[in-house]
Amino acid sequence: MEPSDSARDCAQIAGEPGMLARDLGEFGLIARLTAGLATRPDVALGVGDDAALLDLGPDALLVATCDAQVAGRHFLWGVATPEEIGHKALAVNLSDIAAMGAEPLWALVSLLLPPTLSVDALDGIYAGMRQLAARFAVAVVGGNVAATDGPFALDVTLLGRVRRGAELRRSGGKPGDVLLVTGRLGAAAAGVLLATSGDSQETGTILADMRASARQAMVAPFPRVVEGRALAATGVVDAMLDVSDGLAADLSHLCAASATGALLTAESIPVAPEAEAVARAFGRDPLALALTGGEDYELLFAVPPDQVALALDAVRAVGADATVIGRLTEPERGMRLRLPDGAEQALEPRGWDHLRPFGRTS
Amino acid sequence: MEPSDSARDCAQIAGEPGMLARDLGEFGLIARLTAGLATRPDVALGVGDDAALLDLGPDALLVATCDAQVAGRHFLWGVATPEEIGHKALAVNLSDIAAMGAEPLWALVSLLLPPTLSVDALDGIYAGMRQLAARFAVAVVGGNVAATDGPFALDVTLLGRVRRGAELRRSGGKPGDVLLVTGRLGAAAAGVLLATSGDSQETGTILADMRASARQAMVAPFPRVVEGRALAATGVVDAMLDVSDGLAADLSHLCAASATGALLTAESIPVAPEAEAVARAFGRDPLALALTGGEDYELLFAVPPDQVALALDAVRAVGADATVIGRLTEPERGMRLRLPDGAEQALEPRGWDHLRPFGRTS
Repeated sequence: MEPSDSARDCAQIAGEPGMLARDLGEFGLIARLTAGLATRPDVALGVGDDAALLDLGPDALLVATCDAQVAGRHFLWGVATPEEIGHKALAVNLSDIAAMGAEPLWALVSLLLPPTLSVDALDGIYAGMRQLAARFAVAVVGGNVAATDGPFALDVTLLGRVRRGAELRRSGGKPGDVLLVTGRLGAAAAGVLLATSGDSQETGTILADMRASARQAMVAPFPRVVEGRALAATGVVDAMLDVSDGLAADLSHLCAASATGALLTAESIPVAPEAEAVARAFGRDPLALALTGGEDYELLFAVPPDQVALALDAVRAVGADATVIGRLTEPERGMRLRLPDGAEQALEPRGWDHLRPFGRTS
Repeated sequence: MEPSDSARDCAQIAGEPGMLARDLGEFGLIARLTAGLATRPDVALGVGDDAALLDLGPDALLVATCDAQVAGRHFLWGVATPEEIGHKALAVNLSDIAAMGAEPLWALVSLLLPPTLSVDALDGIYAGMRQLAARFAVAVVGGNVAATDGPFALDVTLLGRVRRGAELRRSGGKPGDVLLVTGRLGAAAAGVLLATSGDSQETGTILADMRASARQAMVAPFPRVVEGRALAATGVVDAMLDVSDGLAADLSHLCAASATGALLTAESIPVAPEAEAVARAFGRDPLALALTGGEDYELLFAVPPDQVALALDAVRAVGADATVIGRLTEPERGMRLRLPDGAEQALEPRGWDHLRPFGRTS
């Protein structure tokens, strides 16, 4: 669970009788449910990052995370194939393990099954999951099957391991650190925009290969496991997390955990070509898709200025790339965005809210 | 996941087009989904027992299990309180860790939330879960919140640890081993029978305290964590599992994993007084409730005949009790039940099927 500090503040004031889960929102709810949870001496890091860190002895930490995909909320049967649904259910968890700089090892798969779901669909879901698991040598070691009268859901718990001291948390960023992000942002959000627009006139103006790759980014993101471990191995990264809720929202989580502010440079943000093409067709701002769209599953990380080249080399050595997008600042400056004309504006931590319907951002 | 060998056999023949999840049944489905799963050298035990065993180095194994509670399937809002729902969601997982003889340590809690669920209900669910977690020093270290358009579900992943060599599996039972079970059986099934009968004439004939304790067994089972660890510490137990699906069904899992048959003595099976009282009122056989009712969360274990006293002492030393109910036999004799008149009949592995509606056994 990943509450932000601001969400924790919100939760303090929430609690009138008759309040519904949706009234609190995702982060308010998490903050409320996890406030004052008991801990144990062997919990190195509990609720509040991409994954928990658990003490395995002198050499290593166990990393544990879970994330569910729910039909109608996280995917649509008519849009994603069963294989893609299975792939994504594991991918989003792999991304959380990657964000800790850890090696994924073992998965538990819990299914909530409408009894009338076709076995063919389930076979496809498992095929997609297995293919991605094999790619990273992850073993599915257990799970559960339960019936539901509601939509199909697939809840994956993923366990991994990281050498003690090499783990990368959201905390640890310092004012002056340079912010980088792997890959490009906004393609998945472009896919969602396309999927929820149907065959509109706007859609027809977008090149078929752009539509296909936007869809691919939405339904089958590829987690940055290799990049995460490569960055952890450098020893120079101060803080890291994955961009699942959207760059602005996830940056706010990093800033909250690191007690910093941040300044992003609009021109430097790597907007995916799919986001450019789809935004152009729909008269939307491509930068907004990149900042708040969510589900990019790229890695956002902070390194001291004199270590940027080393971090970039590490990412490039494994065949990927990263871009400098800004820097961390003193906390009282908040989160800001510098526009091309040099003006600065506040950057709102808007993004994906898991309690909202498919395709809606908060 | 807990497929039996017979379920694996069934899965081989299943796969016609248009087949639905419910057509395969729980165990057929699990067998199909987990057949030929890739593994890793550090997976000591994967799918097929109460929990997975994962290699933590020379001294200890990590134990991992998950189990979901779904509204309308595993509990009814009108019957269980939110606190009881939270308690049970953790209890059923603690029972799986107990069945491995392990120490529970860390939980991840994944919620599927109808957005209109009241926050009060969620607070209660977490309160129930925390109270039981505190009892066994379990830390909730993470989780996830996802919205659903269907019923509320609570999926708990529980991690634990066991000294290497002390872990208790379903396999390892030998012909001639004596079978024992902790506590008494059938009370939860009696609670389900009451809950699904409403205020019938039969219900009125049952003493109020019997009704209350049957309900309690159904909504708030207490896991045998202390007993499981005490039994593991003796070093004399050959095989163990928890009675979640029902004695007959779970015994069939133990027999399948151990490659044995079993002979139970009807008179020796410890039928809970709640099962006696409720069965009497409804004209049902109390022994049937104890054999096939499910959700007892007692421990069923096999020990060599000359070690029975030692195992019983271990259970009694922690304030519980266990009963000798039969023995393991050569596999070709199958599962049988010896009746009071000395006659023997086949014992069918019927029990709880998690793909059926609330209160239905297969």
